[in-house]
Amino acid sequence: MSISSLYFPTEPAAPQVVSSSPGPKSQAAITALGNVFDSRAAYFVSDYEKSVGNYLVDVDGNTYLDVYAQIASIPLGYNNPALIEAAKSDKMIRAIVDRPALGNFPGKDSEEIIAEILKVAPKGQDKLWSGLSGADANELAFKAVFFWYQSKKRGYTTQFTAEENESVMKNQAPGSPDLAILSFERAFHGRLFASGSTTCSKPIHKLDLPSFNWPKAEFPSYKYPLDQNETENAAEDARCLSIVENLFNTWKVPIAGLLVEPIQSEGGDNHASKAFLQGLRDITLKHGALMIVDEVQTGVGATGKLWAHEHFDISPVPDLVTFSKKFQSAGYFFHDPELVPNFAYRQFNTWCGDPARMILAGAIGHEVVKHDLPAVAKRVGDYLYKKLEALQTKYPKYIRDLRGKDRATFIAWSLADVTARNKFLADMKTVGVNIGGCAEDSVRLRPTLVFEEKHADILVDAIDKILSGY
Amino acid sequence: MSISSLYFPTEPAAPQVVSSSPGPKSQAAITALGNVFDSRAAYFVSDYEKSVGNYLVDVDGNTYLDVYAQIASIPLGYNNPALIEAAKSDKMIRAIVDRPALGNFPGKDSEEIIAEILKVAPKGQDKLWSGLSGADANELAFKAVFFWYQSKKRGYTTQFTAEENESVMKNQAPGSPDLAILSFERAFHGRLFASGSTTCSKPIHKLDLPSFNWPKAEFPSYKYPLDQNETENAAEDARCLSIVENLFNTWKVPIAGLLVEPIQSEGGDNHASKAFLQGLRDITLKHGALMIVDEVQTGVGATGKLWAHEHFDISPVPDLVTFSKKFQSAGYFFHDPELVPNFAYRQFNTWCGDPARMILAGAIGHEVVKHDLPAVAKRVGDYLYKKLEALQTKYPKYIRDLRGKDRATFIAWSLADVTARNKFLADMKTVGVNIGGCAEDSVRLRPTLVFEEKHADILVDAIDKILSGY
Repeated sequence: MSISSLYFPTEPAAPQVVSSSPGPKSQAAITALGNVFDSRAAYFVSDYEKSVGNYLVDVDGNTYLDVYAQIASIPLGYNNPALIEAAKSDKMIRAIVDRPALGNFPGKDSEEIIAEILKVAPKGQDKLWSGLSGADANELAFKAVFFWYQSKKRGYTTQFTAEENESVMKNQAPGSPDLAILSFERAFHGRLFASGSTTCSKPIHKLDLPSFNWPKAEFPSYKYPLDQNETENAAEDARCLSIVENLFNTWKVPIAGLLVEPIQSEGGDNHASKAFLQGLRDITLKHGALMIVDEVQTGVGATGKLWAHEHFDISPVPDLVTFSKKFQSAGYFFHDPELVPNFAYRQFNTWCGDPARMILAGAIGHEVVKHDLPAVAKRVGDYLYKKLEALQTKYPKYIRDLRGKDRATFIAWSLADVTARNKFLADMKTVGVNIGGCAEDSVRLRPTLVFEEKHADILVDAIDKILSGY
Repeated sequence: MSISSLYFPTEPAAPQVVSSSPGPKSQAAITALGNVFDSRAAYFVSDYEKSVGNYLVDVDGNTYLDVYAQIASIPLGYNNPALIEAAKSDKMIRAIVDRPALGNFPGKDSEEIIAEILKVAPKGQDKLWSGLSGADANELAFKAVFFWYQSKKRGYTTQFTAEENESVMKNQAPGSPDLAILSFERAFHGRLFASGSTTCSKPIHKLDLPSFNWPKAEFPSYKYPLDQNETENAAEDARCLSIVENLFNTWKVPIAGLLVEPIQSEGGDNHASKAFLQGLRDITLKHGALMIVDEVQTGVGATGKLWAHEHFDISPVPDLVTFSKKFQSAGYFFHDPELVPNFAYRQFNTWCGDPARMILAGAIGHEVVKHDLPAVAKRVGDYLYKKLEALQTKYPKYIRDLRGKDRATFIAWSLADVTARNKFLADMKTVGVNIGGCAEDSVRLRPTLVFEEKHADILVDAIDKILSGY
């Protein structure tokens, strides 16, 4: 039996469109919500009670095949019975009502909860620190990087100096040193102040906010199809790596860490090659900096492996790997004991994560492994990619630079511009497909891990139908 | 029937100490947890299943009267039946397993969930934006402040300029302007990078981290008892207000917002007077800045009113009020429509909060109102404060500067130094009381809202017992 049928015997066979999107009930609900909350970004209002598997139902009764999955986050479909079971467990109920300050008062099940998540950790990573969102995960990782960098500088065991203790209270060096995280143009790492300083995909994410003046390197822009442009793309990797190297050599303050997405997702599904990622790894080693791989969007099976960077056998493995979205919990994995700060209470806050969300992450990981869902994503992605290649031939103006071959369902393509792209996304809703964009001109597919060939067929037919009318 | 008896018919009658703290089982569990997580800050390992009401049980079987409540967060006692009911509800289970991207795809119950929280919003506040932790709440509030400040500067309706759109991608002005948030010495507002830049209570929170060089004013240090030092304390208010005024006039970059705790909690339970808070309000109005009141620790009834700043009738009401801890959810309240950014997707992220935690916050608020728990805290706090005054007379060396009169159970006092304080906190565990500190030399009481006279008696007897041995 297919995995979606196993989980969802009542999953609809097809989308159903009964109104415009947003329909009148959604519009009224968005207006009402606007009285208490900023609801202007709402596409429609969902009825999560009626949603099932790969289908999201709205309050007007429209049933969408959902290949956006709450901005790449829902891992196992709506109302997945295995997760409902986890949500009803006594352990979960306690985690909800007796939320611990995990650093000071861990519970008897804390080790087991964390160990369950670590079962699906990236290769070589055996510890984690937990946070609450992708942005939070990245900023906690930055803290670990800066602690490590300064500890190394002062020889690990030394106490802080009086000057450090005094100057830090004025937000001044040496206690609060000028250090940088290097990231990339078109990167997205979150929207708080430090994570936002590493984000570089759209002005709207950052305008009017003070930021750290941290360096941005160029991320490779490859020519597609990749297999016909190997020489040029290798030259592009070399060009971008030399920019990174140059920034390490010339940036006005020390660069303590390098932060990279294996696939820049919000920024346009820009894939990195194995050579580029290994080149970055080599540069960090050469310059005594740490490598953080941001797998907030690419992690937990969506690219056909548990973690996208595992496609590349980066050696040695990255120092820190951040996660969120499909794990429904957030934090970073690491392996080097030197990334544990030299004192307690340095990486610390009241809650140190949310055990309720951590229990869910463990349950998600358990299902992902049990049913080898990365392999399902790979199988379905290969099937879907071939069909999209055919559509690309048929509609070359509307499916450009198809990306994501051998990356399971983590697929994207470009249209001519933002207007064409936005029209396409809106039109797809009229045939019952909820689909998302990235960058200004691209469409990204981010279905659940229980998206199968039958769903891919519906998606492809819907794309064909819309594009045939253009 | 008393509220604790109503909720917890099986609540223990007294603490029970069966081992050292941490006992052997806790020690083994802390060591094991250390293999996957930084467990060095753990005091002991809790058995939340066995904990009930005001009593926290550890894995060795010690039963502590808990007046620290997971760093001032547990609102209604361990395993509160009303919250268990909320945790078991279909609405909660859906919020756990179908976590929405709340900005893009709110659910049919989103408005109701938010409206329930707003029922206990501070006076005058009618909207909220949701986040995930106290630090996150403050940083989201900073974003709202900076958006507002720049929008006002450019005349609200104007689009961004090409120069702004380009410079922001390089983290440079004018798109990323140099603006500041003013906070206070000894303040605690969180430990991410921007919130950390406003925090100024202990070096360990900030060492080795880059920061924004934002201004810190002095927070009043009053002489106790307050009613015998009114003239001197009024002069202290005036002195500190003039420092704030001077910073607004002279700081090298514009100050867009002022951030203040009504009672600096982590920083030592430093209370602000009505005159000081109103003075701050007046200065923000004069200088065209916004006032953020951080009620992360003081909010939701603990000081005898729903929100601590409501003791002071600040006029006009603060622009933004941040919350977390006792609400088990986080975010900020506001009322001015101009604090809604001029475009969608400016205050935005994937999840925009966690409806599971928001449902719990609504359930907490419902119980707080239904049983008028701020009044309970006031009644019990007055009872407790009198007993502590008597102990202060008996042990003036160990109970200094008793603080929190008329602030319900939000009570603190100082000892001679960090050594004396830490010894006291550890000794209290030997008689079955879990109690916390603040600043270097202070003890803070942060019991639940269902802490009553019978618990206060046990606490006072325990303090008396320990101090009588000194």
